Amino acid sequence: MSLLTGFAERDGFSADPAHIYLSAGASSGVNTLLHILCAAPTSGILVPIPQYPLYTASLSVLNATCVPYYLDEASQWGTSLEAIKEAYTTAKSNGTDVRAIVVINPGNPTGASLSEADIRSVLGFAAEEKLVVMADEVYQTNVFVGKFFSFRQVLLTLQKENPAKYGGVELASLHSISKGMVGECGHRGGYFDLIGFNKEVEEQIYKFVSITLCAPVIGQCLVELMVNPPQPGDPSYPLYEREYNSIFEGLKQRATALYEAFKEMEGVACGEPQGSMYLFPTIHVPPKAADAARAEGRTPDEFYCMRLLEATGVCVVPGSGFGQKEGTLHFRTTFLAPGTEWVGSIKKFHKEFIDKYQ
Amino acid sequence: MSLLTGFAERDGFSADPAHIYLSAGASSGVNTLLHILCAAPTSGILVPIPQYPLYTASLSVLNATCVPYYLDEASQWGTSLEAIKEAYTTAKSNGTDVRAIVVINPGNPTGASLSEADIRSVLGFAAEEKLVVMADEVYQTNVFVGKFFSFRQVLLTLQKENPAKYGGVELASLHSISKGMVGECGHRGGYFDLIGFNKEVEEQIYKFVSITLCAPVIGQCLVELMVNPPQPGDPSYPLYEREYNSIFEGLKQRATALYEAFKEMEGVACGEPQGSMYLFPTIHVPPKAADAARAEGRTPDEFYCMRLLEATGVCVVPGSGFGQKEGTLHFRTTFLAPGTEWVGSIKKFHKEFIDKYQ
Repeated sequence: MSLLTGFAERDGFSADPAHIYLSAGASSGVNTLLHILCAAPTSGILVPIPQYPLYTASLSVLNATCVPYYLDEASQWGTSLEAIKEAYTTAKSNGTDVRAIVVINPGNPTGASLSEADIRSVLGFAAEEKLVVMADEVYQTNVFVGKFFSFRQVLLTLQKENPAKYGGVELASLHSISKGMVGECGHRGGYFDLIGFNKEVEEQIYKFVSITLCAPVIGQCLVELMVNPPQPGDPSYPLYEREYNSIFEGLKQRATALYEAFKEMEGVACGEPQGSMYLFPTIHVPPKAADAARAEGRTPDEFYCMRLLEATGVCVVPGSGFGQKEGTLHFRTTFLAPGTEWVGSIKKFHKEFIDKYQ
Repeated sequence: MSLLTGFAERDGFSADPAHIYLSAGASSGVNTLLHILCAAPTSGILVPIPQYPLYTASLSVLNATCVPYYLDEASQWGTSLEAIKEAYTTAKSNGTDVRAIVVINPGNPTGASLSEADIRSVLGFAAEEKLVVMADEVYQTNVFVGKFFSFRQVLLTLQKENPAKYGGVELASLHSISKGMVGECGHRGGYFDLIGFNKEVEEQIYKFVSITLCAPVIGQCLVELMVNPPQPGDPSYPLYEREYNSIFEGLKQRATALYEAFKEMEGVACGEPQGSMYLFPTIHVPPKAADAARAEGRTPDEFYCMRLLEATGVCVVPGSGFGQKEGTLHFRTTFLAPGTEWVGSIKKFHKEFIDKYQ
């Protein structure tokens, strides 16, 4: 019952165990939900861009339609209701049967942590257009600025305020043991929780997950440990709290160190670290570097990332792997590696790169 | 490299690590392979009947066509080339694009262990018709009679004998940590090995498995321990050997006890235990029992299994869950539970059931 206690503590609303499904990490939950949501090549799913490529890859396997909506870099990579509406309307007019909207919060690769207002507007749109909401909330404890609002908490609040409008919203929220301060990536543990799903649809979900028999048992145990951590007074609480805080502070310090470095790098622009495990700066590369990239058959961001890897051993991922607005360039960097000397190597490389191609 | 040593020792042919894929149990491997093999609703896969329902369930998710072929109960549930050809020809004439044949050896639910001759004839047919062979060999160490022949070993032997005919055969063989004497079911570990796959197809398999990042790490470790067990002279060898043999002998004794009991039960017919973890006897129920089943909205085998469960606490699975020839009835029983007193309870129940409905 402790998974339920965890939900109640986080959101202020109790949960129903009948609608919580253990999964082999959030990836497996996403796979299940997209299998059930997509029925034909015209089935469309709104996916944020930039996105974690699991979504486009899974939709490609299912031969369904990805309906991309751009996040708003100018507003700290928040959701833009206007961009969502535009993507939705265009897709509908092209004959796409848009069935759901995916939100990754905190963001991967963007590092954004959505405001309650953003979440309310996404849920409002989902209610109006009868879209299933898939909230990928695997970075929910990786929040440096402000507070994490779960889609579940906001939806249940809206349902109290306006049951007529929000009573019918179908929400799936996903979590994982691979992120946060737990970070048990290889054990493939996670769960998803369903709110308001149509009974017949949920029966299909139950049947679908039954094919694979069970999620890995160690992953299941780690889910339990994650959602039911030691409490004040428990013998292991002081050690747990010390370790948890030290991992959290380490991530925050390294995020800040990276952010400060990016501020000083010519042609690099990055918002303040908010959450998840990533920064996703914009980079401007000199035209000569773009020419050199073309000569290698690479995009300019791929070219930049390859040169960085060769020069420093630091591996970052080009923005083109996640999707980015035409004409813009980014890369995603984690701040998981201990120490901060590698931040200095990136800075040094960048200066040399700019000097070389300027 | 020890997975390779295991292959070489079992089959007498070395293996190439580039074509071995770790998976979250054999189920996940089957899911991967069927995803890649099926392209349209007309894509057909030959599946043995009776079968482990993973195959029909996965084909249903993929909206592809299951092409059932019956195993030959009269020949210890071996494969019948005639039955395979008939199923294939009928499916082709109905417009089904038959792409692969699944073989479960040792069998689930049948308990059969295929002869080398059966395997040769399946491979011969696959070579002639250019069918991919999916060999589900998760029970390969659960063999009580004779020797286990892997499809890999037989194919590689045939390729030496007749390269022109067998050189192009594409074989996927699957294994798991959930069975055998290891029995680490919940950890979701396994692998599949590909022989002769088209390069472009294998690239798609590689991409597909990359979406889920990795198989559970503990499952990966257990795969290593399974294929590279302690060797004579190792400190843990005597204990390992004792435990392995005692599990093996326990399974064999219970299988034999069940078999002896079935021989004495009126209207029950069962072949000698050969392999896997199951017996799959034919049952004949009195017409009155069939009427009582109909009144409950159950098939006669479901009815029998429910009454057995209620009377004894022993859970067996009706043959209709696996597929069986029209007009025949079976149930699948494992012999995993320790002790043999439950064999006596089945016998006692059966007598009472027959007495009641005769």
